[in-house]
Amino acid sequence: MKIYFAGSIRGGREERTAYQELIIHLKKFGQVLSEHIGDDKLGINGEKGITDTKIFKRDIEWLNQCDLVVAEVTVPSLGVGYELGRAEMMQKPVLCLFNTTKGARLSAMISGNAVFRVAVYDHIQAAIEEIERFVHDCARTCDAL
Amino acid sequence: MKIYFAGSIRGGREERTAYQELIIHLKKFGQVLSEHIGDDKLGINGEKGITDTKIFKRDIEWLNQCDLVVAEVTVPSLGVGYELGRAEMMQKPVLCLFNTTKGARLSAMISGNAVFRVAVYDHIQAAIEEIERFVHDCARTCDAL
Repeated sequence: MKIYFAGSIRGGREERTAYQELIIHLKKFGQVLSEHIGDDKLGINGEKGITDTKIFKRDIEWLNQCDLVVAEVTVPSLGVGYELGRAEMMQKPVLCLFNTTKGARLSAMISGNAVFRVAVYDHIQAAIEEIERFVHDCARTCDAL
Repeated sequence: MKIYFAGSIRGGREERTAYQELIIHLKKFGQVLSEHIGDDKLGINGEKGITDTKIFKRDIEWLNQCDLVVAEVTVPSLGVGYELGRAEMMQKPVLCLFNTTKGARLSAMISGNAVFRVAVYDHIQAAIEEIERFVHDCARTCDAL
């Protein structure tokens, strides 16, 4: 199974530890194409030694290849939002995980969109359980898995 | 001409004065469907008296109706990112305006995407001039206008 994990880079790295923990868990189910999102050394300026055009093309290619998308949506991010719009058009199953303890409010374009599965959590274990259920449901209902 | 203006709401209202000024200018060219984005009274919790599902459906309908999209992308926003992904799939002409004086760095999913016209600015007059050029170019090349 190929998984696309989406999380904020230039929008802010506050939740990188959560990204890391979620990615570690996702790797039990298959390959996480965008594993670098959880990299501790990846700062707010993003990846080095690669142009924005190449990042864009690579990430769209990964989105095309993946069987499902897991997005951590607590930190507002243009890139994550854009990827969610594209993932929906590619008819990928999408889970959005939102941490309710950070004082943010989730965009209506995500929470009001019935196509996405949106799960709120207040500690990482609850988010991991949501991933378990999502992957289990996808395996049951998605032709690709 | 119908224009969809995209700007951050729940991602942060720091740039609402810029949104206001850009919307005032856009109204010279036609109807700005999402004029409320510039509303001073609209806070980080978003619109009141309307569900997220209704906001989502209304905004997608406006995106479908519009002739072009102008997005102010300085403040990272999941909703703006999502709308840009959907607008691209609807083949709408898109201008993204990014203020370079705020210390942020634009997402590679926007700056690396050749389909969007991305313009950086350091004062509002420069952004307004970018809008003039964009609308002028659209009027020349877009069948819809």
